[in-house]
Amino acid sequence: MSDYRLLKKNECEIKDSFWSYYIDLVREKVIPYQWEILNDRIEDAEPSHAIDNFRIAAGEMEGHFYGEVFQDSDVSKWLEAVGNILMLERDEKLEAQADSVIDIIAKAQDESGYLDTYFLIEAPEKKWTNVLECHELYCAGHFIEGAVSYYLATGKKKVFDVAVKLADYLCDVFGKEEGKMHGYPGHQEIEIALLKLYDVTGSEKYFELAQYFIDTRGTNRFFEEEFEKRDRICQWTKAKVEEPNRWYNQFPYSYYNQFHLPVRRQKEAVGHAVRGVYMYTAMADIASRTKEKELFDACKNIWNNIVQKQLYITGGIGATHSGEAFTTAYDLPNDTNYSETCASIGLVFFAQKMLKNEVNRTYADVMEQALYNTILGGMNYEGNRFFYVNPLEVVPETCYGNTERNHVKPVRQKWFSCACCPPNIARTLAGLWQYIYTADEDTAYVHLYIGNESKIRLSEHTLCVRQTTEYPWNGNITLDVSADTDEPLTVALRIPAWSGEQFVITVDGVCHEVSAQPNGYVYLKQNWNGNHRIVLELVMKPELIQANRRVHYNGGRAALVCGPVVYCLEEEDNGRYLNQIMVDAKSEWKEKEGTLGGRSRILEGRGWREQMRTDQESLYHVYSEDREEIAVTAVPYFLWNNRSEGEMQVWMRVGR
Amino acid sequence: MSDYRLLKKNECEIKDSFWSYYIDLVREKVIPYQWEILNDRIEDAEPSHAIDNFRIAAGEMEGHFYGEVFQDSDVSKWLEAVGNILMLERDEKLEAQADSVIDIIAKAQDESGYLDTYFLIEAPEKKWTNVLECHELYCAGHFIEGAVSYYLATGKKKVFDVAVKLADYLCDVFGKEEGKMHGYPGHQEIEIALLKLYDVTGSEKYFELAQYFIDTRGTNRFFEEEFEKRDRICQWTKAKVEEPNRWYNQFPYSYYNQFHLPVRRQKEAVGHAVRGVYMYTAMADIASRTKEKELFDACKNIWNNIVQKQLYITGGIGATHSGEAFTTAYDLPNDTNYSETCASIGLVFFAQKMLKNEVNRTYADVMEQALYNTILGGMNYEGNRFFYVNPLEVVPETCYGNTERNHVKPVRQKWFSCACCPPNIARTLAGLWQYIYTADEDTAYVHLYIGNESKIRLSEHTLCVRQTTEYPWNGNITLDVSADTDEPLTVALRIPAWSGEQFVITVDGVCHEVSAQPNGYVYLKQNWNGNHRIVLELVMKPELIQANRRVHYNGGRAALVCGPVVYCLEEEDNGRYLNQIMVDAKSEWKEKEGTLGGRSRILEGRGWREQMRTDQESLYHVYSEDREEIAVTAVPYFLWNNRSEGEMQVWMRVGR
Repeated sequence: MSDYRLLKKNECEIKDSFWSYYIDLVREKVIPYQWEILNDRIEDAEPSHAIDNFRIAAGEMEGHFYGEVFQDSDVSKWLEAVGNILMLERDEKLEAQADSVIDIIAKAQDESGYLDTYFLIEAPEKKWTNVLECHELYCAGHFIEGAVSYYLATGKKKVFDVAVKLADYLCDVFGKEEGKMHGYPGHQEIEIALLKLYDVTGSEKYFELAQYFIDTRGTNRFFEEEFEKRDRICQWTKAKVEEPNRWYNQFPYSYYNQFHLPVRRQKEAVGHAVRGVYMYTAMADIASRTKEKELFDACKNIWNNIVQKQLYITGGIGATHSGEAFTTAYDLPNDTNYSETCASIGLVFFAQKMLKNEVNRTYADVMEQALYNTILGGMNYEGNRFFYVNPLEVVPETCYGNTERNHVKPVRQKWFSCACCPPNIARTLAGLWQYIYTADEDTAYVHLYIGNESKIRLSEHTLCVRQTTEYPWNGNITLDVSADTDEPLTVALRIPAWSGEQFVITVDGVCHEVSAQPNGYVYLKQNWNGNHRIVLELVMKPELIQANRRVHYNGGRAALVCGPVVYCLEEEDNGRYLNQIMVDAKSEWKEKEGTLGGRSRILEGRGWREQMRTDQESLYHVYSEDREEIAVTAVPYFLWNNRSEGEMQVWMRVGR
Repeated sequence: MSDYRLLKKNECEIKDSFWSYYIDLVREKVIPYQWEILNDRIEDAEPSHAIDNFRIAAGEMEGHFYGEVFQDSDVSKWLEAVGNILMLERDEKLEAQADSVIDIIAKAQDESGYLDTYFLIEAPEKKWTNVLECHELYCAGHFIEGAVSYYLATGKKKVFDVAVKLADYLCDVFGKEEGKMHGYPGHQEIEIALLKLYDVTGSEKYFELAQYFIDTRGTNRFFEEEFEKRDRICQWTKAKVEEPNRWYNQFPYSYYNQFHLPVRRQKEAVGHAVRGVYMYTAMADIASRTKEKELFDACKNIWNNIVQKQLYITGGIGATHSGEAFTTAYDLPNDTNYSETCASIGLVFFAQKMLKNEVNRTYADVMEQALYNTILGGMNYEGNRFFYVNPLEVVPETCYGNTERNHVKPVRQKWFSCACCPPNIARTLAGLWQYIYTADEDTAYVHLYIGNESKIRLSEHTLCVRQTTEYPWNGNITLDVSADTDEPLTVALRIPAWSGEQFVITVDGVCHEVSAQPNGYVYLKQNWNGNHRIVLELVMKPELIQANRRVHYNGGRAALVCGPVVYCLEEEDNGRYLNQIMVDAKSEWKEKEGTLGGRSRILEGRGWREQMRTDQESLYHVYSEDREEIAVTAVPYFLWNNRSEGEMQVWMRVGR
């Protein structure tokens, strides 16, 4: 396990024509906005009360807990976003805000180390009686992650000590030893946090507890037994229920909570999507350290199941709002799906940890698919409105008027009663540098094409790399590379699956006739001492993409994709009734003048719009074929709904 | 109100090439099957326990109530089906079965007249404490309807006396007088039953109570007050709730339960679809008797809202399973809809009562649209499997694998835990004769084309009519008419909207150049004494129908319709992946050899199927246009899933 190292701050600094805007936005807009939200100072937004919950638990304020049982985690994720931003650059004012809330949190923690304001305030006697539903371990995990990040960024130990005390307490409560609880989280997350804490502290017990949670899951009757012990009372309704977590039409909770099988026997992604990908992330992380084949194989099977059968073209996962869950192979409805922003973030985590097990472009391809589409789309261009659910087709009237489609919001929201997504976006974008590279003994792998300056530490040497690119708006990437040795080292470049085989690589102006290895990477091995320049030209052109015929929802339809960016039609550009438009399968798509969300590529193609005659106002009428030729405008999916409310569609009708 | 008369038994006898099969089926298969079900003698079916509930309430058996709070109504609807069948022909064995259950029911009724086994067995002290959720009035209504039917058929008074005692008791409990409850049903139905009982008894108080329920609804805070009185306890979870009847994502219960406004101010169909149409039926019935314009206008507005904005082409209503409810204008999803069989039956009731207010083909057109498609489709050809939900598109894998689509069953079921639909089909088909004709002073209106022999009583005279037709397989109808007078009388024939203007009418061999009136009827006024023959030839040919562009679900699609019969594609004929098929907009549709469900018309047209190359096994791939020409087979929607489980689709992709 010793070969695992955290990338250290300042070793990768993003300076990118595309992403720097978003990282600055997180610093200047998103974090301050969310601070106001957490302090309940934004009008007409869903109340948060998250910081007040800590104040009440700390005895600084009177009152009751308000919000979801996992309300604490909103503060923790904000703190992690702050830490990630401070790693890039310290900021006194921001630290003062963070320190003020850290003081409250530290006071709220009880003597044992326990820290969860819902139970501290409302039901101290019920701690750990409902691990399944009550998110105590989830909240602990997010708090530890936030604390680690803030500590790494600032070196300030106060919050880190609270986290260590909490983690030590958890090690006393859970574990295989007699007298400890033989349980595991209802909402996985703590495993990821414990592995991070292990990296920072080197303390094996955190690693062991993470491993215990993963190994024990699905092997005993822990959840059934605690359910019986609490007299089958449901946390949400306070009523007796036949089965926990069973909402309307929900499948068994053992699937929902991913304990239907021991994790090593799980082959498909099932149940609550965010819980799933957080767990798979921890599994992949552990496998990369222990080199255990069985665990890795389980990860690989689950990965393949997601990517080959359950992944939206936008990098979204979780096809149903019922349980916020995975469903079944090829079931990818466009207008009732969930595709929670958090789930795509978790998918990026999972991909990153898989890359530590094996280098294959599938992981980085999916990472950018999620980042450039669902994750970025989860926030507006100003950084103060958010999507929780990320549909691929929206007709606003039906979202408002149909109770079962009501989870799909046609406009981004100021905040949510269940507000997991907005601070998740903030922490992820602020920590984006972590996903660009990995390294082994003598190879630096370039997974993402994002402008940055980095020192990549191999086993004995360091490669300095400066990436320059206008990605995702074109496919040209320049890497200025220099090594601290004459020994040959390898720079491996991902050739994304979307770019086909037609890339060009030059090194110091000389064209290299290389092809990608089966894993999708090109390996350039040479002496990099001095100043060297790699130029990679990927073919990035608009293309119509078709779904597998088993995805019946997309029959007769195509999505327009250019590089990693998925496009969509919006009512703003194309008028109402987008489903009356058919794009010409033979159309060329050209860049169109105009701006949307800063520099972006707007595309224009040809198509037809069906004509409605005046006698066709009735609900049904005899079929007619009248259509007129029109220009069709497509905009990047992640920028949709940055102008007006209206229809949106990714999978367009296509024909001739 | 005196001009209202019940059609009497033996005054209309169906002898039809199409429907007689189904009526015989109800007699010979459906009623006996449901008797076995109600007695829990069918293996692997959802248990009913409905007759045992009565036994327990009658003190003949020990045990607990089992089932839905409205389980009683399954027995009552079965009894109504029996009555309707016995009106056509008496049957000793069947009567013996009915009498045996009637004996139990009579014993179960308490001294006051109260009759609801859930409360009699489980919670006598809680009678009338939750009128909103507990269906006591709904069960009373179905029982009264069943009793009236059985009494009219057999003349046996026992069950009728129980019904009268129950109705009298209800008149004591509910009403405007002080000391009575100023409430109305949570699930409307009792209004229809009280109006029937009024017709049979002539006792005004039943009419007045029906009117009271309709008039008072939405004018006071009855449901809110009883909710507070029972300490906000929900019947289903036994937990305190914020609002009754609020399921996941459900809209306010005042809409769900249609008391959001006084009924006269309601303009749109909202909430639970079956409750809605049952209420609109009673409203229309009352309006036809009182001639109140305001009430009729409300009915008309609601009717127009349904027919112009919320009606499936199959005659289904209720676009969402969330609350089994209406949603919003033009929101007609094909694969997540509800379209409960009962709702289409209620729509037929509503249409029939509207015809008593005004003669317009919209009512009879919709009646046959519902009858020939959703209602008939609710049962298999053998009469022992049933649909509750009637989708217009099915891909079985997604119904099984997606929790929010799980209400859509890809195969008809033996029975349901909530079993309202199967006995509703039985009673409706057995009573089909009621919907064919109406009459006023000197005109007999022919609404439905169904072979039958009838005596139609006008104010002073009687018209004897014998209809002969092969409808719905062709559009030729022969009416042999004779009157008991030389005075000119009118026979008015509906020209269905689907048939266009090109019909031909001959009377006694002479062609009549008449056109339909604005209401869609042709009026033939003459001396019908002696034997006269009207021959009506409607143009009935396969046609592709398009939905209003506001129904975005159907963009680029068409449905194949021939006369009143909607067609669909099935996997059985066309292979898997129906959404890979596009029918040629210019295709002719010809009758194809083969039988399905007795004599039926199978159609064949031309189309294309997209070709999948072997490199297209991935989830997404570059768009290709390969397609091969194929023959496409379409079968009547009501006969789908009579062979194998598989995909089904009404709205086919159409193009060129």
